[in-house]
Amino acid sequence: MAVDQSLDLQHYCRSVAERAKLASAELARLRPQQKNEWLHRCAAALRQAIPGILAANAIDCNSADENGLSAAAIDRLKLDERRIEAIARSLEEIAGLSDPVGETIEGSIRPNGLEVRKVRVPLGTVFFIYESRPNVTVDAAAICLKSGNAVILRGGKEAYHSSQALVQVMTDCARQCGLPPSAIQLVDTADRAAVGYFLALPQFIDVAIPRGGKGLIERVVAEARMPVIKHFDGNCHVYVDRSADLEMALAILVNSKCQRMGVCNACESLLVHAAIAEQFLPAVSAALGQRGVTMHADPVALPWLSGAVPATEEDWSEEYLGPDISIKVVPSLADAIEHINRYGSHHTDAIVTRELEAARTFQLQVDSSAVVVNASTRLNDGGEIGLGAEIGISTDKIHARGPCGLKELTTYKYLLIGDGQLRT
Amino acid sequence: MAVDQSLDLQHYCRSVAERAKLASAELARLRPQQKNEWLHRCAAALRQAIPGILAANAIDCNSADENGLSAAAIDRLKLDERRIEAIARSLEEIAGLSDPVGETIEGSIRPNGLEVRKVRVPLGTVFFIYESRPNVTVDAAAICLKSGNAVILRGGKEAYHSSQALVQVMTDCARQCGLPPSAIQLVDTADRAAVGYFLALPQFIDVAIPRGGKGLIERVVAEARMPVIKHFDGNCHVYVDRSADLEMALAILVNSKCQRMGVCNACESLLVHAAIAEQFLPAVSAALGQRGVTMHADPVALPWLSGAVPATEEDWSEEYLGPDISIKVVPSLADAIEHINRYGSHHTDAIVTRELEAARTFQLQVDSSAVVVNASTRLNDGGEIGLGAEIGISTDKIHARGPCGLKELTTYKYLLIGDGQLRT
Repeated sequence: MAVDQSLDLQHYCRSVAERAKLASAELARLRPQQKNEWLHRCAAALRQAIPGILAANAIDCNSADENGLSAAAIDRLKLDERRIEAIARSLEEIAGLSDPVGETIEGSIRPNGLEVRKVRVPLGTVFFIYESRPNVTVDAAAICLKSGNAVILRGGKEAYHSSQALVQVMTDCARQCGLPPSAIQLVDTADRAAVGYFLALPQFIDVAIPRGGKGLIERVVAEARMPVIKHFDGNCHVYVDRSADLEMALAILVNSKCQRMGVCNACESLLVHAAIAEQFLPAVSAALGQRGVTMHADPVALPWLSGAVPATEEDWSEEYLGPDISIKVVPSLADAIEHINRYGSHHTDAIVTRELEAARTFQLQVDSSAVVVNASTRLNDGGEIGLGAEIGISTDKIHARGPCGLKELTTYKYLLIGDGQLRT
Repeated sequence: MAVDQSLDLQHYCRSVAERAKLASAELARLRPQQKNEWLHRCAAALRQAIPGILAANAIDCNSADENGLSAAAIDRLKLDERRIEAIARSLEEIAGLSDPVGETIEGSIRPNGLEVRKVRVPLGTVFFIYESRPNVTVDAAAICLKSGNAVILRGGKEAYHSSQALVQVMTDCARQCGLPPSAIQLVDTADRAAVGYFLALPQFIDVAIPRGGKGLIERVVAEARMPVIKHFDGNCHVYVDRSADLEMALAILVNSKCQRMGVCNACESLLVHAAIAEQFLPAVSAALGQRGVTMHADPVALPWLSGAVPATEEDWSEEYLGPDISIKVVPSLADAIEHINRYGSHHTDAIVTRELEAARTFQLQVDSSAVVVNASTRLNDGGEIGLGAEIGISTDKIHARGPCGLKELTTYKYLLIGDGQLRT
């Protein structure tokens, strides 16, 4: 579809959003069974459609250089049989999760006999704006539909053909299963103005979920006239307390920093209690140096870290998403907490300690979506903490904080049943 | 305090917000006991401060005409001993509610032994923008603090002296109980620019809660850089189904419309199934006519309603907040639901019916914060449904929907405890 005029584009966005809203009313009434049948059918159809999906993906991969993608981004973009199988299996896993819609969250009978139930219902229409990985297209659509929501997908243009092929399979299956095909719509234009038009339609879109860089998030927050659930930066800390098991601390640090560097729950900053700095930092230096991580250190830590560079004030706030880490020696637990709350992004922060009181104080006072004791920051993830699939990790406090799974894409309503109760 | 220059004003707002954020960290750690002691002390101190509070209130009441307040608004503004006693008692009731902070919402041990708990924590800092009733000042401050939040109060200038006297009592008590006095701050300027400055400080303010007219809400949504929980309009419906007990229906209609007209959960629109219109509408006409309610009716209903005027298209969307109601005859339950979802404000809508299937369909398909069967719309209220005190009734779907009590002013964090778990 070629959309040349901004009026046409605005009209196109409005009709997409309007169709999504209509579909959402139907989706809210589906039985769990119907949604799960659709998920299983999608999994089977994706496996059958492998040749077509790979052909579409090849078009994207061939334009990757022209689109200026990094080697890492190209790797995330590229599909093969194994990856499509993984996508299909994730749909089957989502089918196996319990359906959040209709759950009675709480309920009571009031003194006047009025029966009150607080019941989980879908949000309605989700506008999801995300980067280029094709598997995110499928996961997001599946999670939104399973939680009873219609979704408008706005992916990066780098993965457009791949996403289009995947969405085609899913909407075909929707039609076959009696689900409204407008439940999933992929935005059909690379024009960035489209995002603005969608963000101006609160009457049709119930929530905008941007997942990406700072520029995107700021634009969405500034323009959105509906609520936004941000998936923003993770400046995550590992704090090694004076009482820590230093072998465990090193393993947790290396896993948090290096298991996967380009993700939001990777460690970006190490804080070390002064009492153990001399003992611990040389081991850190060896372990991170060996893995090619550049250490940005404060003046106290610097002498113990071979090849480290001096940290600037900016380093403490930096989300590197790569082979860099900031390192600071702190005189106390209280200073560690103060540093984390000041420079961190309230995403995921860990302490390694043997002291109960230190663990309790850290968990009470650090203001982050996940506060971890003696484990890797990388464990703050929907799958790892038991939510099943997630659409991302929210950095907001309102509505959904941390991993955003099926329940986080719902709201609730109060169902009141009486036999003539009045307000007196 | 006289704030003459916009730079001074901006600086003032920033320092208020900064102090609130600092106080919020202290508040989050308080024990339930400390908060409840403060609430009881406030109740006692308010009773002792009655003469001073009434003197401050007299200043506001004397300026009421000059401020252009209606008779109803003046009535809401005016304090007397009985009303202050009611305010004090509401503080004692809030003290009696269970503390939401620290509640384990859910928890499990993961296959790798990682212990995961989802625990309720305060939001942080609340910016509350509201109309003139002085009791709202006290209720809002009490609910925010009990849920562990600092609050910045921006009330109407009509009630400024009353609010100031009340807040003074509460912050004095805070000091005496070891609570941070900046936990409650009343914005000390009538300059409307202040609201804009506060809305630009997401680093200090976690949520903005506007409660008031359309203009205020729209301004806050447009300017806020933090999440907003709107307390907006209630265009609430009573639908009388063909199978309704008409005596019950009339009682519910009269209570929903007339028990208190100026509130958001009052009925603004009556829908009547065609099969019972002829039987029911004359009784409606008598009951509402007798109470001085103007009926805006569609052409089908009009002949049965004595003194009614023809409804315009605008009437179906109108929140009268006074002695007016729109009335329409609908051919079916489905048409009633369609009308409510189209013209309503998704606040509170009721059906009167004897049929199980009609009740179920209505509750499933009407997209409102409260969907009521055989009871008054006025029962969608924090006290009535068992939340205890409320800061208002949210018209948002995100985070808090419907009555907004203590829990709705909290978020959660994940506490992970392990013994060296890594991501594999």
